[in-house]
Amino acid sequence: MAGALKRLVSIDFRIVSAEEAVVPVMDRGFLYGDSVYEVVRTYHRTKVFLLDRHYQRLLHSAEQLHIQVPFSISELSDHLAECMSKTDHPDHYIRMIVSRGEDERFDLAPSESPKLKTVVLVDHIKKFPAEYYEVGVPVALVSIRRNLRTALDPNIKSGNYLNNVMAMQEAKKRGAADAVMLNVKDEVAEATASNVFAVRDGVVLTPPLESGILGGISRGLLKEVLEKHRVPFEERPIPKEEFLSSDELFLTGTIKEIMPVSQIDGKKVGSGEPGPVTRNLMKLWREEVGRRLDHV
Amino acid sequence: MAGALKRLVSIDFRIVSAEEAVVPVMDRGFLYGDSVYEVVRTYHRTKVFLLDRHYQRLLHSAEQLHIQVPFSISELSDHLAECMSKTDHPDHYIRMIVSRGEDERFDLAPSESPKLKTVVLVDHIKKFPAEYYEVGVPVALVSIRRNLRTALDPNIKSGNYLNNVMAMQEAKKRGAADAVMLNVKDEVAEATASNVFAVRDGVVLTPPLESGILGGISRGLLKEVLEKHRVPFEERPIPKEEFLSSDELFLTGTIKEIMPVSQIDGKKVGSGEPGPVTRNLMKLWREEVGRRLDHV
Repeated sequence: MAGALKRLVSIDFRIVSAEEAVVPVMDRGFLYGDSVYEVVRTYHRTKVFLLDRHYQRLLHSAEQLHIQVPFSISELSDHLAECMSKTDHPDHYIRMIVSRGEDERFDLAPSESPKLKTVVLVDHIKKFPAEYYEVGVPVALVSIRRNLRTALDPNIKSGNYLNNVMAMQEAKKRGAADAVMLNVKDEVAEATASNVFAVRDGVVLTPPLESGILGGISRGLLKEVLEKHRVPFEERPIPKEEFLSSDELFLTGTIKEIMPVSQIDGKKVGSGEPGPVTRNLMKLWREEVGRRLDHV
Repeated sequence: MAGALKRLVSIDFRIVSAEEAVVPVMDRGFLYGDSVYEVVRTYHRTKVFLLDRHYQRLLHSAEQLHIQVPFSISELSDHLAECMSKTDHPDHYIRMIVSRGEDERFDLAPSESPKLKTVVLVDHIKKFPAEYYEVGVPVALVSIRRNLRTALDPNIKSGNYLNNVMAMQEAKKRGAADAVMLNVKDEVAEATASNVFAVRDGVVLTPPLESGILGGISRGLLKEVLEKHRVPFEERPIPKEEFLSSDELFLTGTIKEIMPVSQIDGKKVGSGEPGPVTRNLMKLWREEVGRRLDHV
């Protein structure tokens, strides 16, 4: 079983051994973080959730960097099925990276015909502790700001993740499970690997792309759930002060799904327990995921 | 000779073959650009220029990310000498990268005891065309802004270089040799791999660190040259309009040294030829470099 839970790696859709799971030091992904990526998850072992949306976002990220994704969604889907046929994981965490690949020289401008490299990592999902959902998690509003949209748009999911790494380092130092970052205008942007939602007076709030965030796939699906169930909802910039005095807060992400926030900077959010709106959305979310999986 | 000019690579100060010049796909340098680096050059084949300053800056970059550089400057110096004893390059371009290394999991927060990985790439210097110095180079003032200082400080020389890559892509598309980026306040920051200087009414200007730039080693040495020769100089924020109407413009960098700018966005800078202040500084720079090499 120990062997069975090992990570599986493919390079350019060829499954490789652990020794071959490497990239050249001249790979631009290593030199400059010049790559795009997506993380998808499965339910029921092999049902990849919302692969079409993740693939579309990968195309979007790549397009912003003038990278041509070298596979179709059906080729990707077939390859992921092949990978999962060789694992014993209960559910899968799958990271797919398209790097601009190896260049001959150290020119910042990529060559006209880059040797793109696709790396797929197929792992099991490391479950979060149950109390993260029952009690909620403490977060820190960190001093690190989210990347400027006009410098490196957070809506490009790329190999440049130091902004988030530094924010997470600050959060951990302060005993928090995640970091919430503001943008340069003192508005809430997002957490290090998740979108943020607030609840005030029964209205669900989340920042728009213009606040400098990644358009999360879970965020997008939740918006559909909110609309379907006619939950009052506003997508608009959220000033820092408003965010800090919210009745409820929660995070959304592919792996974490909907995760309540219990404290921010050591101060309780609302009663300090997951609020009624968050609990209701967690239930509606489970139902939505279940319904969609029935149709896969 | 073809073989002799090949790039030499070492990993953790051990010179490796081309096949071994790789990093694991789980290296955080590849996943997140979670690394710091420096580029040094040699003159007279093996005289590494200002290694002490580059080493100090590497320490500074690493410290900002809570990375502990795993070698002393004398260990580094010895290793570089060993590498160069195995090359036939006339002058050396040396890139040294300290990556946070391989993690077991996909946690954004690095592990407490990361397996740091040092990669040294020893190459020959690709000379710029002579006319870049005699005539100057065209640059573009691009739409991409330089990274926000409070998000990812440009004064951390890291593996997150997409901001610069995107700026360079835009410049190349517009037929320019390099991109000059503004900060969020519409002040000039820097070019993609060099600092910028302007000359107005005989006064040399360059932006301060507060404008969101890397404190370049060449920039620092040039400041000393300016002071020594009592050239009027101001280090202060430079608004976009002022920059565009400068009498002279030039770039500084380890490899490019002092490079005049002939045009910005297709419009001539001054007469369109390297101006008298720039020419004088190029001469003083050569003398300063020569003097320092005599004492190495």
